[in-house]
Amino acid sequence: MDEFKRVPADKLFNLMKQLFVAAGMPEEDAHTAADALLVADIRGIDSHGVSRLPYYIGKLKNKTVNPHPKIKIVQELPSTALVDGDDGLGPVVAKFAMELAIAKAGKTGAGLVSVRRSNHYGIAGYYSMMALKQGMVGLAMTNAVSMVAPTFGAKGVLGTNPLSLAVPAGQMRPFVLDMATSAVPLGKIELALKNNKKIPPGWLYDSQGEFTDDPSMLFKGGALAPLGGTRELGGHKGYGLALMVDILSAVLSDANYGAKQEGLMSMRPEPSNVGHFFMAFQVEGFRPLSEFIKTMDEALTALKESPKAKGHERIFIHGEPEFECEEERKKLGIPLHPQVVLNLAKLAAEAGIDAGHYL
Amino acid sequence: MDEFKRVPADKLFNLMKQLFVAAGMPEEDAHTAADALLVADIRGIDSHGVSRLPYYIGKLKNKTVNPHPKIKIVQELPSTALVDGDDGLGPVVAKFAMELAIAKAGKTGAGLVSVRRSNHYGIAGYYSMMALKQGMVGLAMTNAVSMVAPTFGAKGVLGTNPLSLAVPAGQMRPFVLDMATSAVPLGKIELALKNNKKIPPGWLYDSQGEFTDDPSMLFKGGALAPLGGTRELGGHKGYGLALMVDILSAVLSDANYGAKQEGLMSMRPEPSNVGHFFMAFQVEGFRPLSEFIKTMDEALTALKESPKAKGHERIFIHGEPEFECEEERKKLGIPLHPQVVLNLAKLAAEAGIDAGHYL
Repeated sequence: MDEFKRVPADKLFNLMKQLFVAAGMPEEDAHTAADALLVADIRGIDSHGVSRLPYYIGKLKNKTVNPHPKIKIVQELPSTALVDGDDGLGPVVAKFAMELAIAKAGKTGAGLVSVRRSNHYGIAGYYSMMALKQGMVGLAMTNAVSMVAPTFGAKGVLGTNPLSLAVPAGQMRPFVLDMATSAVPLGKIELALKNNKKIPPGWLYDSQGEFTDDPSMLFKGGALAPLGGTRELGGHKGYGLALMVDILSAVLSDANYGAKQEGLMSMRPEPSNVGHFFMAFQVEGFRPLSEFIKTMDEALTALKESPKAKGHERIFIHGEPEFECEEERKKLGIPLHPQVVLNLAKLAAEAGIDAGHYL
Repeated sequence: MDEFKRVPADKLFNLMKQLFVAAGMPEEDAHTAADALLVADIRGIDSHGVSRLPYYIGKLKNKTVNPHPKIKIVQELPSTALVDGDDGLGPVVAKFAMELAIAKAGKTGAGLVSVRRSNHYGIAGYYSMMALKQGMVGLAMTNAVSMVAPTFGAKGVLGTNPLSLAVPAGQMRPFVLDMATSAVPLGKIELALKNNKKIPPGWLYDSQGEFTDDPSMLFKGGALAPLGGTRELGGHKGYGLALMVDILSAVLSDANYGAKQEGLMSMRPEPSNVGHFFMAFQVEGFRPLSEFIKTMDEALTALKESPKAKGHERIFIHGEPEFECEEERKKLGIPLHPQVVLNLAKLAAEAGIDAGHYL
């Protein structure tokens, strides 16, 4: 087994921030980007944290990401806005847009913001959770590189298009749904491939649009299945959710929608023009917050205390495993895969930074 | 095979309206209720149309639905509102609330409305589509009688909690997603039971929370599976979507959430206190409508023209089959099952209405 190295969160944060600064970003934006990646790692969503740093830095180096974006509001009404990210790094643009949604919600009760000319932004939950501190509900969506086939289709022409909703609670932890609209994320296919394992039917289509148990088919013209899998099991619903996210994130904003969103994780010579969608609304626009969080606690408790399936002892609320991971990793540090450590050391050397000081 | 009877849409509408008036509803509200059921039938969602009329009339007769509700706005901000439906019929309360969301969106760009003390409202798509005529995007959700088990749970403590999003297009038909967040709706289980057929694993749990192929298990302590089915195939995501709908519809509004929503389709002696959630927003709050619908047409066309899976010749956009059904049924009439015709004749006789005039 590969040996993971535990690194304290603050050290990892500082190294990532220095690397973003070295790649030409202003201090404040580097802070935002490092924090977005760190939170993914802290919450156990390792596929969207520091492991993505070489990609982020690479996009800055090949100039498809703009280190000094002039983020603009293109169009707005009291409760809506379209934001142009000027090809800035995803977390920088997305944080601006979610803050705008929250500010609008502070005035009118609700704020909706669609975004174009952005980039990969890490985990959607980072932005939806920004609303929690304000006693608001937050929603975040983004389109993504096309690799999901529609029902009865054979080609990946939609992204895994995740959506996240964060809702405050009281004694209970907040409800934080953060899900790809595909049956499984790309990472599960990659992991099976790496471990030379077969995958269950329902995850992946081959190039003919038929289910395959061979994970390598993804790179041989295959495509991910939408949530639900087959038509019989509701795959058209997952496909509909993926299309919903694409419309709100990329059609509404005039970003690269559907199959135009290609090669996101590769070093293409053009900007990605990713689209996002954010919403925030005040709980107090409906009910007093104190009453609402009391009802949330009751509803979530009732759900957790409901009868368990045979062989199971616990029903989870969405976000719960991540909050528990957060507690552990804040205490013990973040476990880094040896390859991630190597990549970090390489990036640091290139930037003239002493990685040993951090890792 | 049972012989279906084709009835012209306007005749069916008038009969339903007369029956609602005979049950004590004002003319205008009876019109709304009949229209909501008719649109479900016209669009081919037969489980939510006239076949539900005996239930609706029964709820008026046993006084758990208020024929003269005083619908009130309990709390509001420029872009939000909480509505109390005063136990009115679902379509009457829901139409009021969606119109309020649209009016707010007309002023600020977006309107969000949560609703308590309502009832079953038919198809969610009826309300989301109200936004289309205004060049707006519409969203509708509702909680429902608890029959869906959470992941690792064995009891139906959440509803099939549907959500619908309607988005205008230009030459193409609008995108109308209208889906239960369970793998399949109740109707599919009932149909298998009626036809004495087994069901595929992934639809239904037995009372131990294990998948069963026996549809009768639903009435023996079983529960529907959330969209995605097993944890391995993403069932926790369908569970999360069901909980999201429950929170926005029933926790935010203080309606009967989760397992409190029991016996919705039975004649309980108490009001149902169903919760809904609606949103409307102006496309023009983001982009000129003319540009947006052009991009929508391009995006939907590209999707439909993408490569097909083996054995399939067509990729559908959500709402497309229903719009095609609408064209056919407006021309040829609505096919009614003999049992539905019998039920209508019985209701008409009880109300002193000559059913022969309509059917």
